[in-house]
Amino acid sequence: MSVLVLGTVAQDTVKTPFGRRAHILGGSAVHFSMSCRFFTDVSLVAVVGEDFPQKYIRFLRGKGVDLTSLAQAAGKTFAWEGEYRGDLNSALTLHTELGVLATFRPQVALRQRKIKHVFLANVDPDIQMGLLKQMSPPAFVGLDSMNYWIHQKRRALLRALKQVHIYVANDQEARDLTGEKNLIKAAKALRSFGPRMVLIKKGEHGVFFYSDAFKAALPAYPVEKVVDPTGAGDTFAGGFMGYLAGAKKIHETSVKKALAFGTVVASFNVEDFGVARTARLTMQEVRARLLGFKRYSSF
Amino acid sequence: MSVLVLGTVAQDTVKTPFGRRAHILGGSAVHFSMSCRFFTDVSLVAVVGEDFPQKYIRFLRGKGVDLTSLAQAAGKTFAWEGEYRGDLNSALTLHTELGVLATFRPQVALRQRKIKHVFLANVDPDIQMGLLKQMSPPAFVGLDSMNYWIHQKRRALLRALKQVHIYVANDQEARDLTGEKNLIKAAKALRSFGPRMVLIKKGEHGVFFYSDAFKAALPAYPVEKVVDPTGAGDTFAGGFMGYLAGAKKIHETSVKKALAFGTVVASFNVEDFGVARTARLTMQEVRARLLGFKRYSSF
Repeated sequence: MSVLVLGTVAQDTVKTPFGRRAHILGGSAVHFSMSCRFFTDVSLVAVVGEDFPQKYIRFLRGKGVDLTSLAQAAGKTFAWEGEYRGDLNSALTLHTELGVLATFRPQVALRQRKIKHVFLANVDPDIQMGLLKQMSPPAFVGLDSMNYWIHQKRRALLRALKQVHIYVANDQEARDLTGEKNLIKAAKALRSFGPRMVLIKKGEHGVFFYSDAFKAALPAYPVEKVVDPTGAGDTFAGGFMGYLAGAKKIHETSVKKALAFGTVVASFNVEDFGVARTARLTMQEVRARLLGFKRYSSF
Repeated sequence: MSVLVLGTVAQDTVKTPFGRRAHILGGSAVHFSMSCRFFTDVSLVAVVGEDFPQKYIRFLRGKGVDLTSLAQAAGKTFAWEGEYRGDLNSALTLHTELGVLATFRPQVALRQRKIKHVFLANVDPDIQMGLLKQMSPPAFVGLDSMNYWIHQKRRALLRALKQVHIYVANDQEARDLTGEKNLIKAAKALRSFGPRMVLIKKGEHGVFFYSDAFKAALPAYPVEKVVDPTGAGDTFAGGFMGYLAGAKKIHETSVKKALAFGTVVASFNVEDFGVARTARLTMQEVRARLLGFKRYSSF
């Protein structure tokens, strides 16, 4: 089994109470892949500019990420600069430079078009749909978005939601898109927009999953020293989608296990800047923490 | 086994998106008792004024609550008026009338002084300690407080924390008392103030438990129609303390089960105004929802 992810590859500059890192490897597709790789093969669809360091390409390849559909275009790599203060629950964006992302039209290599599990990380909903059209109808499609598209391209986003199996949102996005304050009502409203499953990420408060057949919730794994939360949501999604791609069936048992694995890998991601922690993470560590998480969250 | 609770008996006037109720039965000791009674005998220590309706006395007696140490004093019953808007996660206090609470000095009936499980719901920390001095050293003491005492009587509260086994706080109180934004760090700091166990209530996000031996977290039970959240925290505490009083030992298994029972009873409390829902609740309903909650929150 295999997962294809569309998203961003970025150079992030991040400041947190634990320090500052400039031009480190980041982006939704990167964080997703660094987590997904523990469970299944992962193919990344994104674009970088001429300035993108070759060492990052080597690094991702070394981690087993298939970069066949990673395009390089004239211009600068997408760059994000942000700062976290206080409880590190929300980022203050200091600077965004779209660079080559502004004109990006993803092209999936022919041999990757039959991949059955697809994750559309946060980019323009029309671009997300453009990718989906290139694929042989996949078995399972997940989509993430963000407030910018909810407000600027609401209709395109709603059209896209009709084409996917699971919508992954954070709590604020779920509330903004539906106008519902109660998260359970918001999830129900999102379900009515099309996707059979809705997954709401609540940061330090864990995740909530909604479908007609069952609902589920897990707390976050308790991390005392959150160094850099950037990419935690994409890391979560990578573990979640990766585990499901490897599971025989998508049903209550596998979905809940996928939520747990996503939670655990995300909890490692926040322990260091960028992908520093997930880069040195082992499956043995993931499994050990999963056991601890089960004890922590069960009664 | 038996639990003694010190707290308020109030007449609440509450407005939520689902309507308004005037002068209904409320108060921390009432909500606590209405939940605790499902698991063990409960004795209430509080004060009411001359205006307190006899029907509420009959109601509480009818629910099996021991009112021997409920004092009646000249003056008005403590009255609170509040409103919930939006997502119903926080109340806007419109009016508070302390009435007889202003001069209340609790007196525990002699035969109740040997009760082994004591819960000190939110009142002046000096009053909480005054009650504790009347008791034969209890086996297990829980204490709740609020922001008012954290800011106005911080030193008295810190003295009180040295005398109790478990401190029950909401997330904001935990942050305010410790100055720590990260809840795990906050819980650890609270532990260092004295209590062996720390329980942080996070409303719609569930609960977090901290001790040296183990940590635990549970999500909230998903209630779609939250009619009135008043007293949810005290209802939770009543279920938690009641279950533990009935358990043979206080250890990881019983504490986690107590967290689950507290969560479930609290989820009923918010489904109607005041104690309307817990008044008609049955142990059969509690057990059925506990099973659903286990499925919902486990993997």
